[in-house]
Amino acid sequence: MDGKRILVQKFGGTSVADTEKIKNVARRIAETRSKGYHVVAVISALGDTTDRLVELAYQITPRPRAREMDMLLATGEQISVALLSMAMHELGHEAISFTGAQVGIVTDSAHTKAKILDVKVGRILEELEKGSVVIVAGFQGVSLDDQITTRGRGGSDTTAVARAAALGAEVCEIYTDVDGVYTADPRLVPEARKLSRLSYEEMLEMAATGARVLQLRSVEFARNYGVVIHVRSSFSQEEGTWITEEDERMEKAIISGVTHDVSEAKVTVFDVPDRPGVAAALFKALAAENINVDMIIQNVSENQRTDISFTVSKEDLQKAEEITARVAEELGAGGVSVDRDIAKVSLVGAGMRTHPGVAADMFAALAENDINIEMISTSTIKISCVIRAEDVEKAVRAIHAKFGLDRGVVMRA
Amino acid sequence: MDGKRILVQKFGGTSVADTEKIKNVARRIAETRSKGYHVVAVISALGDTTDRLVELAYQITPRPRAREMDMLLATGEQISVALLSMAMHELGHEAISFTGAQVGIVTDSAHTKAKILDVKVGRILEELEKGSVVIVAGFQGVSLDDQITTRGRGGSDTTAVARAAALGAEVCEIYTDVDGVYTADPRLVPEARKLSRLSYEEMLEMAATGARVLQLRSVEFARNYGVVIHVRSSFSQEEGTWITEEDERMEKAIISGVTHDVSEAKVTVFDVPDRPGVAAALFKALAAENINVDMIIQNVSENQRTDISFTVSKEDLQKAEEITARVAEELGAGGVSVDRDIAKVSLVGAGMRTHPGVAADMFAALAENDINIEMISTSTIKISCVIRAEDVEKAVRAIHAKFGLDRGVVMRA
Repeated sequence: MDGKRILVQKFGGTSVADTEKIKNVARRIAETRSKGYHVVAVISALGDTTDRLVELAYQITPRPRAREMDMLLATGEQISVALLSMAMHELGHEAISFTGAQVGIVTDSAHTKAKILDVKVGRILEELEKGSVVIVAGFQGVSLDDQITTRGRGGSDTTAVARAAALGAEVCEIYTDVDGVYTADPRLVPEARKLSRLSYEEMLEMAATGARVLQLRSVEFARNYGVVIHVRSSFSQEEGTWITEEDERMEKAIISGVTHDVSEAKVTVFDVPDRPGVAAALFKALAAENINVDMIIQNVSENQRTDISFTVSKEDLQKAEEITARVAEELGAGGVSVDRDIAKVSLVGAGMRTHPGVAADMFAALAENDINIEMISTSTIKISCVIRAEDVEKAVRAIHAKFGLDRGVVMRA
Repeated sequence: MDGKRILVQKFGGTSVADTEKIKNVARRIAETRSKGYHVVAVISALGDTTDRLVELAYQITPRPRAREMDMLLATGEQISVALLSMAMHELGHEAISFTGAQVGIVTDSAHTKAKILDVKVGRILEELEKGSVVIVAGFQGVSLDDQITTRGRGGSDTTAVARAAALGAEVCEIYTDVDGVYTADPRLVPEARKLSRLSYEEMLEMAATGARVLQLRSVEFARNYGVVIHVRSSFSQEEGTWITEEDERMEKAIISGVTHDVSEAKVTVFDVPDRPGVAAALFKALAAENINVDMIIQNVSENQRTDISFTVSKEDLQKAEEITARVAEELGAGGVSVDRDIAKVSLVGAGMRTHPGVAADMFAALAENDINIEMISTSTIKISCVIRAEDVEKAVRAIHAKFGLDRGVVMRA
């Protein structure tokens, strides 16, 4: 390469909602180039294209196969990369668009939720050297047997970060419709503040517990490969939130933020024999069907019998319920129930490690507002509580206020 | 293979205009399978998808580059192959969809009008052997350097025929919105009759002179590889028109039909020095820019000067005019004029070879209706006349009546 630094810029669906917005994106890429960077742009399908394609599929069949869904959905991005490339040409910049297959995003064969196996960069580097902006599709790839795969919604964040890692890019900028990561969802908490910097660990917990700004896997990838992420708005020039290694210059906040998630449901198996291998049998069966289980709680045993509760994404609920019912019968359990009306509220902050009172304060905030806690799960830098879905807004506001997040940063001792 | 015969079925844009029509196509393929055939379906983009994509491109730039247009337009077919595959699954049939690149339609790099270099069949045969219907995109391919290419509108007919040839298919069925090839365009001549059988040569001349039912290149391909074509309607079970080698069983009609074409324009170079190499210089320059010239007329020379007129597609007119003006100046010609208001009306029939009076009768039909003939071009089985565009309907009706095409087949002696 010619010594110029590489910047990966990822634009989500709202940033390329229509042709006018595509032109805006082209102008932003042109500005970045004028600062002396090589730019690799990763983009998603135009606005509601994916929804429209999904609708077409369901007009044909209630059970579209995953392989054909990938074939179908990959077209949305192919349209947007071609249009953005044209928009760059119109601004007088050299540019070339590529599908996932063409630039070697090699994945496994798990259609609609494929995992990246390899990221080839030869063709991209070649085009960058020629002076072109390289525009690549975000959430699609190609399997080893030459099938088109997609990586699920949000997959393009991970593709962008994987690209940035493979190319040794200086920064991976993720453009979205909000201007960064907040201490809570501003739609619920108007006083929420934008965070200027977060460590990978904090962002991982935020993403895992409901912050929608970045996809979890993309943050894991960034941490594993040391890719600096800058989350920012495509509609303003303001700095957003930087996600980096935890370092000395970082704000020493105890708490980063409060997150919430209403996308999960709870499954409970009653009256299970409490002997070795019971939990293994259940969760192995769920894992075999690619169902991600989030929180797991096992009650204290009584008379060699116990209850096991766990949460899964509502999308997977039907399948999870079927599998659980089958395993419960095999195990001689009393029964299975599901509960869709739950919410998870979480508190995330690296400073928790050295501040033992945080959990107690969070529980107090909920108690003071008559909010019952149904499940609890903790990590070194996170506490999550499952509560009733109807209490979620009240809970987020109460916790946000309890830790003074609206008043400014609570610094570590 | 398992000895089952292969049928290639090609469905145009109107046959797959919406999801209901796609389900119809799926049912027709299912019927064909139930008759014991392996089916390879070649399909186009849904209804107006291509137009919508072109519109998006022009919202971005008035000069979209051909490579990016191909990237963009290829998505239309990818959507329809995926949806048709889902529709087959819904009917309980195994099916798999492929892009042009995936099933090895290898083309040159002439984006938006790529020519087929190679048609690979390995992957298709593999899937047919597994018992699947194979559904492939029609007008797209992949160049040797792994770029997505398209073959221009109508290119999917040729792809279907090329596939049929490579697979040794029994028949290549071309489904369209009309139920066959007619003695004239039924919109102009309500009395026009459907032809049950045509030789390749007749169909070639019909296609070359304006019959829109089949693309010229697809018929050439069919003739060169002996592929039997059956043109029929996707909305009825009736037999359409068979295109085959001329053989003994064929109707010995003198005339197959009357065609017309208003898509061409006439360019005239005045007062050109009449010496060797003049025509070569002009038409070599046009060919170098990929401009197809149809009819060429050179006047009788006077004082070593002459006029040359030729017709080209209106799409190519601007470029043709520029090139002609340049060459005309180099040659010291008097000037160049263009005329967009022309039409070409043609009479096609294998029986002409042995019936010398046909041309005279055609000219008489035009004269009787006060229609002036501006250019004439003949082959052994075709006569074309360029006339004023405003006279085209009258001319087609007059010729159709003159040869009694509305009354039934005029048999050869």
